[in-house]
Amino acid sequence: MEVDQVVCLPRLSRVAVCGGTHGNELSGVYLVRELLRTGGGAAAAAGEGGPEVLTVMSNPRAVQQCRRYVETDLNRCFTHAILNGPPSENAPYEITRSRELNALLGPKGSPEAADLVCDLHNTTANMGLCLIAYSDCDWICLQIFRHLQRAMPDVPMRFIHFDISCKESYSLDSVGKHGFAMEIGPQPHGVVRSNVFTAMKLGVRHTLDWVGMFNSGTVFEGGCVEVYTMVRNIDYPRDKETHSITAAIHPQLQDRDFCLLRPGDPLFQTFSGETLRYKGGEPLYPFFINECAYYEKGIAVSLARKTHVMVPAIRVQAGEGRADRREFTSEEEE
Amino acid sequence: MEVDQVVCLPRLSRVAVCGGTHGNELSGVYLVRELLRTGGGAAAAAGEGGPEVLTVMSNPRAVQQCRRYVETDLNRCFTHAILNGPPSENAPYEITRSRELNALLGPKGSPEAADLVCDLHNTTANMGLCLIAYSDCDWICLQIFRHLQRAMPDVPMRFIHFDISCKESYSLDSVGKHGFAMEIGPQPHGVVRSNVFTAMKLGVRHTLDWVGMFNSGTVFEGGCVEVYTMVRNIDYPRDKETHSITAAIHPQLQDRDFCLLRPGDPLFQTFSGETLRYKGGEPLYPFFINECAYYEKGIAVSLARKTHVMVPAIRVQAGEGRADRREFTSEEEE
Repeated sequence: MEVDQVVCLPRLSRVAVCGGTHGNELSGVYLVRELLRTGGGAAAAAGEGGPEVLTVMSNPRAVQQCRRYVETDLNRCFTHAILNGPPSENAPYEITRSRELNALLGPKGSPEAADLVCDLHNTTANMGLCLIAYSDCDWICLQIFRHLQRAMPDVPMRFIHFDISCKESYSLDSVGKHGFAMEIGPQPHGVVRSNVFTAMKLGVRHTLDWVGMFNSGTVFEGGCVEVYTMVRNIDYPRDKETHSITAAIHPQLQDRDFCLLRPGDPLFQTFSGETLRYKGGEPLYPFFINECAYYEKGIAVSLARKTHVMVPAIRVQAGEGRADRREFTSEEEE
Repeated sequence: MEVDQVVCLPRLSRVAVCGGTHGNELSGVYLVRELLRTGGGAAAAAGEGGPEVLTVMSNPRAVQQCRRYVETDLNRCFTHAILNGPPSENAPYEITRSRELNALLGPKGSPEAADLVCDLHNTTANMGLCLIAYSDCDWICLQIFRHLQRAMPDVPMRFIHFDISCKESYSLDSVGKHGFAMEIGPQPHGVVRSNVFTAMKLGVRHTLDWVGMFNSGTVFEGGCVEVYTMVRNIDYPRDKETHSITAAIHPQLQDRDFCLLRPGDPLFQTFSGETLRYKGGEPLYPFFINECAYYEKGIAVSLARKTHVMVPAIRVQAGEGRADRREFTSEEEE
């Protein structure tokens, strides 16, 4: 590999690991508690090149009540509009909290923002481990994804891209210069399953290991990554008057996240037993199939197009591949 | 079979099918809605011997909020003490509601009570279909169980016995002369899975079919039934100060409901990775492994002893095996 093919990127000095953004997604809740108890995040990253790690329980009130949120979904509160709206004493708790988190980890879009935000989530869908990000050309996120794939070959793993601008992006991970949600399922909300917890713990550890290696000057080779780009959502069939759903995900679709859905394939089974079929014109990849929290959002399943992205080789910018911690400055990505 | 071996029991004139007793256990919620919409319960039972069927949404406020309960667990409110306590305007919603349901389906322990109450539940545990009852010698419940086993051979099915007196029994099904919870899993709370919904729909249909056949004079042969009698619960390991759990169900135990747990077998895996083992002196059968709603009740797993019960042949009492519906009178079971 020739040196001039390697993209040089700023050091990742400050990394946040967040859990409990949804208070009933328990892998992240218990992993953050464990990291806080043992100093595990900092310990894992304490080697040469290790970044400063902030471990954050994002929505402690929702965690305390084991609910997704108290008043409104925290993970929809990180748009520029909400973060920069007028202060209000009567604002829902989560809006106040999103501004606190933005002060801690951001401000979003500013040079002071954390270099990387990893936000931990669970889903009831059979999605394995997914990194969900707003860019399909963030080489840091994509190289971390490739590292996790290599380090955890037994865990099904995908990269999901939501094509939303920085300004409109709404989730906690969008506050960092780089960021992703680490989403693992299937796990019922309000439940912690050991295998899912262990996968998340390993995913976080390997992420922090990668950051340490990156900061120390390791060159990460380029390669091709499969990316699922979100296209659209499909809602449940609903009763026109009551808005109550009238069908469930079809048994032939249930648990088949990322298996190609073709026009005419079974999509729903009504409660009276009828099969409803997918009427889209294009075969697409379903994900978030039957996610608990999305009933209220009108999403029975999300659909994605699969693409391939060529990721370049990367390394830390010259002069930054060293173990001492730099001040958190206004470096710009190239 | 000689006639004098057949136990004769009173006709089952009035049957209640209840769902939404826990508002986020969605199979029962949507099945009750479907039965109310189509008159399905009454229609299924409309043949010769068919009973009067009451279809009941037990906790509509909790259903509306998709929560287990609003103020307190409705399915713990049907003790004699709570049902007969002094009226209070400040009582939690569920206590008021339990008294309404007792007026509709009971009064509990009285001759006016419904003949059979079938209450629909879901669990996050991998329990298949279970009938849960307070007696291991209620021949009606046990014969219905045998009928469901024969009619639905592909569904794993068990009979669970909680050895609690009528006075102390606390669940909605205890209001009927006969009653059971039909518990099906695994299904996350707040989610409806088609396969679980279909199993419940079939379970209810076959139950009502059986009642119709019984009322029409069919003789049901005796036989042996496996019964799991609840022995005790085990709580999660918890932090002494915060009471937060410090371990999850061990991956080798997760999803293995009704597989014998022997002394020394793995029970929990702590969040730091340590295995904790079952220290009981007796091999027992685990169930409700990692049930979401039981974290707050201090139950990580319940343990049962397996016994075998000889169920006699039964038929309806002489003169009652006819299609016309009798008045609801003060017949006593023999």
